[in-house]
Amino acid sequence: MSRLIPIPRTPSAYAYPLLIKQLLHAPMAVNPEQEIVYRGQVRHSYWTMRHRVGQLASGLDSQGIEAGDTVAVMDWDSHRYLESYFGIPMMGAVLMTVNVRLSPEQIAYTLNHAGVKLLMVHADFLPVIEAIRDQLETVERLILISDDTLSIESTPLPEGFVAEYEALLAASPPDYAFPDFDENARATTFYTTGTTGLPKGVYFSHRQIVLHTLATMAALTSAPSQGRVHRDDVYMPLTPMFHVHAWGMPYVATALGMKQVYPGRYAADHLLRLISGERVTFSHGVPTLLHMLLSHPDAANVDLSGLKIIVGGSALPRGLAQAALDRGIDVFTGYGMSETCPILTLAQVKTTLRGDTTTELDVRTKTGLPIPLVDLRIVDDEMRDVAHDGKANGEIVVRAPWLTQGYLGSASESERLWAGGYLHTNDIGSIDSDGYLQVTDRIKDVIKSGGEWVSSLELEDLISRHPAVSEVAVIGIRDTRWGERPLPLIVLRPGQSAEPADILEHLRDFVRRGAISKYAVPDRVLFVDAIEKTSVGKINKRLLREQYQAVLPL
Amino acid sequence: MSRLIPIPRTPSAYAYPLLIKQLLHAPMAVNPEQEIVYRGQVRHSYWTMRHRVGQLASGLDSQGIEAGDTVAVMDWDSHRYLESYFGIPMMGAVLMTVNVRLSPEQIAYTLNHAGVKLLMVHADFLPVIEAIRDQLETVERLILISDDTLSIESTPLPEGFVAEYEALLAASPPDYAFPDFDENARATTFYTTGTTGLPKGVYFSHRQIVLHTLATMAALTSAPSQGRVHRDDVYMPLTPMFHVHAWGMPYVATALGMKQVYPGRYAADHLLRLISGERVTFSHGVPTLLHMLLSHPDAANVDLSGLKIIVGGSALPRGLAQAALDRGIDVFTGYGMSETCPILTLAQVKTTLRGDTTTELDVRTKTGLPIPLVDLRIVDDEMRDVAHDGKANGEIVVRAPWLTQGYLGSASESERLWAGGYLHTNDIGSIDSDGYLQVTDRIKDVIKSGGEWVSSLELEDLISRHPAVSEVAVIGIRDTRWGERPLPLIVLRPGQSAEPADILEHLRDFVRRGAISKYAVPDRVLFVDAIEKTSVGKINKRLLREQYQAVLPL
Repeated sequence: MSRLIPIPRTPSAYAYPLLIKQLLHAPMAVNPEQEIVYRGQVRHSYWTMRHRVGQLASGLDSQGIEAGDTVAVMDWDSHRYLESYFGIPMMGAVLMTVNVRLSPEQIAYTLNHAGVKLLMVHADFLPVIEAIRDQLETVERLILISDDTLSIESTPLPEGFVAEYEALLAASPPDYAFPDFDENARATTFYTTGTTGLPKGVYFSHRQIVLHTLATMAALTSAPSQGRVHRDDVYMPLTPMFHVHAWGMPYVATALGMKQVYPGRYAADHLLRLISGERVTFSHGVPTLLHMLLSHPDAANVDLSGLKIIVGGSALPRGLAQAALDRGIDVFTGYGMSETCPILTLAQVKTTLRGDTTTELDVRTKTGLPIPLVDLRIVDDEMRDVAHDGKANGEIVVRAPWLTQGYLGSASESERLWAGGYLHTNDIGSIDSDGYLQVTDRIKDVIKSGGEWVSSLELEDLISRHPAVSEVAVIGIRDTRWGERPLPLIVLRPGQSAEPADILEHLRDFVRRGAISKYAVPDRVLFVDAIEKTSVGKINKRLLREQYQAVLPL
Repeated sequence: MSRLIPIPRTPSAYAYPLLIKQLLHAPMAVNPEQEIVYRGQVRHSYWTMRHRVGQLASGLDSQGIEAGDTVAVMDWDSHRYLESYFGIPMMGAVLMTVNVRLSPEQIAYTLNHAGVKLLMVHADFLPVIEAIRDQLETVERLILISDDTLSIESTPLPEGFVAEYEALLAASPPDYAFPDFDENARATTFYTTGTTGLPKGVYFSHRQIVLHTLATMAALTSAPSQGRVHRDDVYMPLTPMFHVHAWGMPYVATALGMKQVYPGRYAADHLLRLISGERVTFSHGVPTLLHMLLSHPDAANVDLSGLKIIVGGSALPRGLAQAALDRGIDVFTGYGMSETCPILTLAQVKTTLRGDTTTELDVRTKTGLPIPLVDLRIVDDEMRDVAHDGKANGEIVVRAPWLTQGYLGSASESERLWAGGYLHTNDIGSIDSDGYLQVTDRIKDVIKSGGEWVSSLELEDLISRHPAVSEVAVIGIRDTRWGERPLPLIVLRPGQSAEPADILEHLRDFVRRGAISKYAVPDRVLFVDAIEKTSVGKINKRLLREQYQAVLPL
């Protein structure tokens, strides 16, 4: 390789660093009149958005923010959040998206850990700030975000706040000169709450976000028909913008010049009104949110056909997928995690697999096909590839140009994440002969019974097909004889009833059909009123294991 | 900016350089059984292609090729050329694509200038090699490419040749370990023949080709319906693969896992057979080639509907576009040049402009909208932006992550290309309120009459609308009174006749409608039998000016 030299560059040539600002060239040239809507209250064009992004940077500059500083945002999904996605990193500063569902103490921990210098807070979160004010070690200034700017003008700012967002923008010139800098500069950071220990900070560079945007765009737009997004789509997130850049989709939507709708705080009736009123056609979220929308009484009166929804964060249950398909929604799985920016795979249905409704449902609820540039493997303990036969399971390890290069300030966990040069997802999965990945379990959720693996996700999928079952979580419970045994926790549908024996018989039916092994059938099931979720809406298996291990005899 | 530091990277983390090999991950994971067809004679899968790419690298390695060496290819459009697009750069070597339409002396010049170490030559070009053998200063080895491998086995290789392509692959292991290296390493080089002086070498890095591929993919796939490409399309180039990587489309088609068809030497009847037999749906080429296809007698018997063709290299005449539309072809313009990798803009029709056939024709024949990441400006002599009103003209200057960073070994021309930090296209254009760029002239083709600019391209467009006109070129001729005057050279359609006065009256009609100025109407026109083209099929205005200036009185 010694003779390999970089291409010569004439001194005046522009090397073109991959910076977030570069994503704005195409929409501003092609579609600057397109709309960006907030709750139906605020309607901006891309011109206005670009103007305000300049004002935001000027305003932050006037508050002492410089390249390398970290600015945190606590807001619902809004046009202001979108402005922050661009304006803050484009200055060379780092955008920290604060998970507002964490406990106040965890929020304080993450703000301190990230060294946040300036914090922008929606008025709804003032009680949180009051509670942690004394714990904040690095925050120098607070900016208030309010949907009610009239009252701001006549009301003094809360104690400690230096400005209100809209007033700051109004007082700031739009012509901030966004500089060029190293594309490997940090653009964003946020914290992932694992099932153990303190929240861990992941971080993404400008280059990583630009490449994630391009590859996700290419994957979403290149499908022949099912699972396809295009420039005329109307985008609204149903994944909070503090969560992995709302899966990076605001960057995708902006780069494509789509109409965008930001809903503010999520409430099913309000979201349904926006979907209908703004003619939303493209969204994404966790299964819980889709379930909430479909089961809301107002849903019956809203035409949801033509809506495309990527579901991720947890496995997409078949029953929920079918319910969405019945409403004319093009629903399919996306896979990724905080550490991966996040998109790795999309469960778009290949044309050769279309037509048969059962096959389509199978495919849509799989984990998906890798998007461009993703090098995804399933491997054994020695990092050797296992067969792609739909049966062999291995740990999912991955390379892509947009994976966090470590955890902030945590050398040993960073090295563990990247052991052997591949990012370890800690998910177990198989790949079938069509290339579809199927996550079968989390490494830490795997149940080992009598030396054999039992897939909690597989059991959850099968149990969820029972007509009386609304929600299910399968956890591993210590067992003196087998080491561990699976325990299903089941929430029944309102008005439905079932006995444990019904569920077990339902599962034995799958044993007879050869779908699962006999030892995978649990010895008992528990009916519960609700299943504990984490701050991002995932089933909190760690907590469930603690809860139910304690109350059950060994 | 001093506080801006690159993201921390844990030692084991994979930084993921943007290398051409990374484009193969998705198709190999998603669609490895897809076909790659050569002339209908050879049918490979992507598995086979990937296998042969490894064999090619092993074979070249056995012939002494190392990272940093330049390997040149002289072939028609083939599966072997596609293998070279990947295998040669993936080794760290540089692929030189030889313009086989140049004169033997020019070919020798470019091979020497690029320092080619190994040359792979299709048997059809052996006479060229014979003619220049003594002039080659750096070529150490020659490899023969033949479509007739049977005869090779029984026939000795031509003198000086060390191997035949298929035999070399058959003798070479497929498991070449393609290394990682700096993404800024040179991947490709080729020569652009300007209208003056020696051919100039441009060059592109791995990073540049990967980014061009991603952005072109996103632009082509994200259109709602018109001008949209998707994974199920069947791709066949109608731009030679030696010409700016066939506009980069073989990389796009491969990264999307499309079926690909390589036609070998272009002949209209053969191309039409392949379009029909292989169900080709996506191609691109110069207007001349589209004209050749449509006017061939066999075209009447081929269903061309559903075919998408991007036309570039020269302006797309309205008459030709209409003829293509009449056959059900989705035809539209693409814009770029050798220096730009090449794609800068695509004339996809915005949904708001669809429906009216005249408007659609206007838009399809415009130069287009910038694709993602392209920063395109029209500027005056002081690099100040001119208005985007569809009227003001300026030089088109551009930034994108995939522009040649100079001309090989030509410091002063490199600096001229990049004066002021933007690449100078040497094209003049306007941008309308919808954002569409329209190239109105080449700087060097501009005709200045009485101090006013006359657009030769605009005159050509208007004259081509006359029903008797098959082809037209407008050049500037020196004039004692006005400095220069436009002179149209016209080829009439077979069986049609027209007088110069008819053409001039046709143009005066546009003056009356306000479309052009009175001084733009030429004083005379010339009917000719043919119009001289350059090696890449563009009208050779330099030659025409020389020819006709000489024979005409001042």
